[in-house]
Amino acid sequence: MPKFIRIDMGSQTTKIEECPEKYIGIAGRGLTSNFVADEVKPTCHPLGKYNKLIFAPGYLSGTSAASSGRLSCGAKSPLTGGIKESNTGGTFSQRMAKMDIKALVFEGLPAEDKYYVVKVDINGVTIDDAPAEIIGMGNYDAVKILQAKYGPKVGVGIIGKAGEMKLTAANISFADPDGNIRSAGRGGLGAVMGSKKIKAVVIDDTGATKVTIANPEAFKSASKRFTAALTSHPVTGQALPKYGTNILVNILNEAGGLPTDSFRCGRNTWANNIGGETMAATIEERGGKTTHGCHSGCVMKCSQHYVDKEGKYITSGFEYETIWALGANASIDDLDTIAYADREFDEVGVDSIETSVAVAVAMDAGILPRGDAKAALELIKEIRKGTPLGRILGCGAAAVGQMYGISRVPVVKNQAIPAYDPRAVKGVGLTYATTPMGADHTAGYAVATNILKIGGYVDPLSKEGQVELSRNLQIATAAVDSTGMCLFIAFAILDIADGFNALVDMINARYDLSLTGDDVVALGKSILKTERGFNQRAGFTNADDRLPEFFEESFPPHNVTWDFTDEEIDEVFNF
Amino acid sequence: MPKFIRIDMGSQTTKIEECPEKYIGIAGRGLTSNFVADEVKPTCHPLGKYNKLIFAPGYLSGTSAASSGRLSCGAKSPLTGGIKESNTGGTFSQRMAKMDIKALVFEGLPAEDKYYVVKVDINGVTIDDAPAEIIGMGNYDAVKILQAKYGPKVGVGIIGKAGEMKLTAANISFADPDGNIRSAGRGGLGAVMGSKKIKAVVIDDTGATKVTIANPEAFKSASKRFTAALTSHPVTGQALPKYGTNILVNILNEAGGLPTDSFRCGRNTWANNIGGETMAATIEERGGKTTHGCHSGCVMKCSQHYVDKEGKYITSGFEYETIWALGANASIDDLDTIAYADREFDEVGVDSIETSVAVAVAMDAGILPRGDAKAALELIKEIRKGTPLGRILGCGAAAVGQMYGISRVPVVKNQAIPAYDPRAVKGVGLTYATTPMGADHTAGYAVATNILKIGGYVDPLSKEGQVELSRNLQIATAAVDSTGMCLFIAFAILDIADGFNALVDMINARYDLSLTGDDVVALGKSILKTERGFNQRAGFTNADDRLPEFFEESFPPHNVTWDFTDEEIDEVFNF
Repeated sequence: MPKFIRIDMGSQTTKIEECPEKYIGIAGRGLTSNFVADEVKPTCHPLGKYNKLIFAPGYLSGTSAASSGRLSCGAKSPLTGGIKESNTGGTFSQRMAKMDIKALVFEGLPAEDKYYVVKVDINGVTIDDAPAEIIGMGNYDAVKILQAKYGPKVGVGIIGKAGEMKLTAANISFADPDGNIRSAGRGGLGAVMGSKKIKAVVIDDTGATKVTIANPEAFKSASKRFTAALTSHPVTGQALPKYGTNILVNILNEAGGLPTDSFRCGRNTWANNIGGETMAATIEERGGKTTHGCHSGCVMKCSQHYVDKEGKYITSGFEYETIWALGANASIDDLDTIAYADREFDEVGVDSIETSVAVAVAMDAGILPRGDAKAALELIKEIRKGTPLGRILGCGAAAVGQMYGISRVPVVKNQAIPAYDPRAVKGVGLTYATTPMGADHTAGYAVATNILKIGGYVDPLSKEGQVELSRNLQIATAAVDSTGMCLFIAFAILDIADGFNALVDMINARYDLSLTGDDVVALGKSILKTERGFNQRAGFTNADDRLPEFFEESFPPHNVTWDFTDEEIDEVFNF
Repeated sequence: MPKFIRIDMGSQTTKIEECPEKYIGIAGRGLTSNFVADEVKPTCHPLGKYNKLIFAPGYLSGTSAASSGRLSCGAKSPLTGGIKESNTGGTFSQRMAKMDIKALVFEGLPAEDKYYVVKVDINGVTIDDAPAEIIGMGNYDAVKILQAKYGPKVGVGIIGKAGEMKLTAANISFADPDGNIRSAGRGGLGAVMGSKKIKAVVIDDTGATKVTIANPEAFKSASKRFTAALTSHPVTGQALPKYGTNILVNILNEAGGLPTDSFRCGRNTWANNIGGETMAATIEERGGKTTHGCHSGCVMKCSQHYVDKEGKYITSGFEYETIWALGANASIDDLDTIAYADREFDEVGVDSIETSVAVAVAMDAGILPRGDAKAALELIKEIRKGTPLGRILGCGAAAVGQMYGISRVPVVKNQAIPAYDPRAVKGVGLTYATTPMGADHTAGYAVATNILKIGGYVDPLSKEGQVELSRNLQIATAAVDSTGMCLFIAFAILDIADGFNALVDMINARYDLSLTGDDVVALGKSILKTERGFNQRAGFTNADDRLPEFFEESFPPHNVTWDFTDEEIDEVFNF
């Protein structure tokens, strides 16, 4: 029977229960969102005693299925005030699954003002005092100290200085197989963990058995078909392994949808300086790694080791969205600076998208000159210092806008809009507006069909077909986020029918079920409705499903505007 | 025909229209709230081009009716995101009324990044460049410079440095008859004015005729009866003239409802140090003025000139709520320090309640020691310097809470809860929760009936009768805020029936109407529904009508909690 583990930081007690029956059939985002909707008071303060933080692996986590090592983290978001599922790589999810732990739930607030490390192993759970030296320390070194103390292979989820300060852009960092940093980045869940004074959660699966597979032969066969789909698709089989997500810079620039100079135009002359091709060539020239998996068993391996001129590691998980946010968006064309910033985001534990968009708003506010790479890096380092300016920045784009009287701030539900302009890639604009997560490209990645022509083609500049596209992708994504699979598998399974069938077949073989594609759609719909229901009880209405008014501005080179009516936007969740 | 004047800062044009027919029968808050509901896009950014700022005198402004010189200012609030009416004394309202100006409306955003002075006189309206020397200057000196330039008796509405910075606690300051500062304090309307780059609005009524009275004899007679009610009631006739609003410190302390140490207890041993009796004695001893009107024709004259040991003027309009907020709430027992802080709030143009509550939150955050008067004053001066810390403070209590990870923040709809604990004065707690204005004692001052036993008595510690009390007072207040009358007249007219009748008779005599008490109630209800309707379209729901969860804490000395259910709270607006 899978375990459901509750850690009450208030009473400093832990409880290992059988998984409640209502949660047996769900996992990943489906589990975290249902749990938050069931147990978190929607109007509670996100940093107060009524919020709960939950980690859950997906249906296929811990199995040999390719790219199935993602972890879902859930809570009420301190940034948006709504429900949040934030998804990460690293080794944590697979270890939980192997230990048959369905969920780790963190509740309550401790009475004492000190930090703790929660340790999970096959003997149970302990709440230790955190080693004093890791408080305020960068995450890279802190992970090393924890792995020295608890074992070199333990999984680690940790908050940095930003989470300690409970800043609303604080993330939760997770160690990857090399002890480097991956992030459950968006929505400020690091602040929730910080409010509970949990500096880190350490998981040691030593002695755990393998994940049980109900029908091993069927699983093996489906897994092969699934892997074949991933490796044969040009995006998941070639582009992502070779260039990582940063392949998108030149593609979006070409499409006129790369927001440049704080969403003032969609194309620039210098994008290639920060593009995936330049990045891969630089890494190769310097002796880094262009290809690296964020968790074991990934076949896409879209991560990398970005290194300096001496070949020394700077960062990994160096994503298009970060490079866009501090690059095109903040008008900085120097990849090394962006890499050092990405490292600092990982060290201090803040969402790289939110914080970089905040830097660009700070440029509009006159805090630093537009495009000044050195000043940007200095500004970002203010977070670690805990200065008032650092705190403002670490609370995200809307906070910078409020403190500096800037109304032109790209956020929805207080969360920064990422790397695809909603005017020039209209499908993803609808996702930004309507997802219960706040502006989030991963919640319904219409870029796939609008720009990459995956799963068909819908003209990115036209309104036609976008409502259905965003709706269907949001439904599919909620389901995929429940599998433990990386969302990027969607590129392959949207185009290759047998890839999708193989995914369903793997779940059926794992649990001895007979789900169909319709069940997957029903699951996705159910999750979205649960999430939206929580948000409604928290006080959200359709008025929160709107883009900022500055998207009325005409956006070159296509000179498009955000032209959906409220009624059209509200159709996305009409299912 | 009354004039309706629109000043479009975008096109730099002005338009003097006849008052639209639908606004003929309303005034003050009734007019500002209906106008905002009609013309401001509810989901707009408060600092963007779609917000509009309106000034409107009340039904009786400019007449000889006692205490009728209040001005209503309205807009979408940058602090709450909802509709806002902020009410002030000063000379502005009476001048507008004498010039037969029903409303001044400020629209649009100018293209140029410079400040303007809008000048209104009987020849029309001009938009002048603001004198360079007043930018960033304290309001006291800036008013002097404007009165030197435009005439010693002109009315002035002005923003300070906080409004220039568009901070969300920025207010609009109005010159009183002596050129000292009164404020439309709450909700950040100074930031709206700042976004439109209006440094000041100057009104010169030279050459204006008197306000027309339809039935002068009837008016005179009603006015006498009304004044008699005010002067005969112990609160409006004796306590307010003698001690000002600060008479309340000892009363609330005695009642156990004076929030001390950031709402941790309701009574302290040192309240008298900052109480009205001490204050009056200090002023008398030092040769200041204990009694002063914020506008001409006031019979309550609850203002004063608080002076230093040398008899030099420090501040006026030195209210109980400010003295509570930086005094009991921030644990500072030194009236002089609070007076210097109040002066600084007026100089820089921020809401003294919001900012003082923010100081107390900053104490909880460890930014300064609890009760440290000197450090508090230094912190407040950061606003004028425009430092990041000053900006955080000038954005209010919730902003300090967010940037410093504090969940124990006394706000409703993002606006700071004022000087009466909702657990120990339950009627006003319901007003905080439900008024469309965000936490605001003036929106339905149940303290009157809970503590002062005016208009009957409802036990402050019991839930019984509070829903009806808060509802009825909110309705009555919306109507009173439409008359141009100071809200304090309510003390008299709640107890003295002929005072209320005289008020209605004055309006009837002024406009040749035959309104009844029922019409007044209908007006109040209609205004509240209009305001709530705007908020709903802006995205507010019942979930926004809730107090912060920390009011579950037991509150000494009565050891009471905030114990209304959601359903009970939602009954307040069930009319």
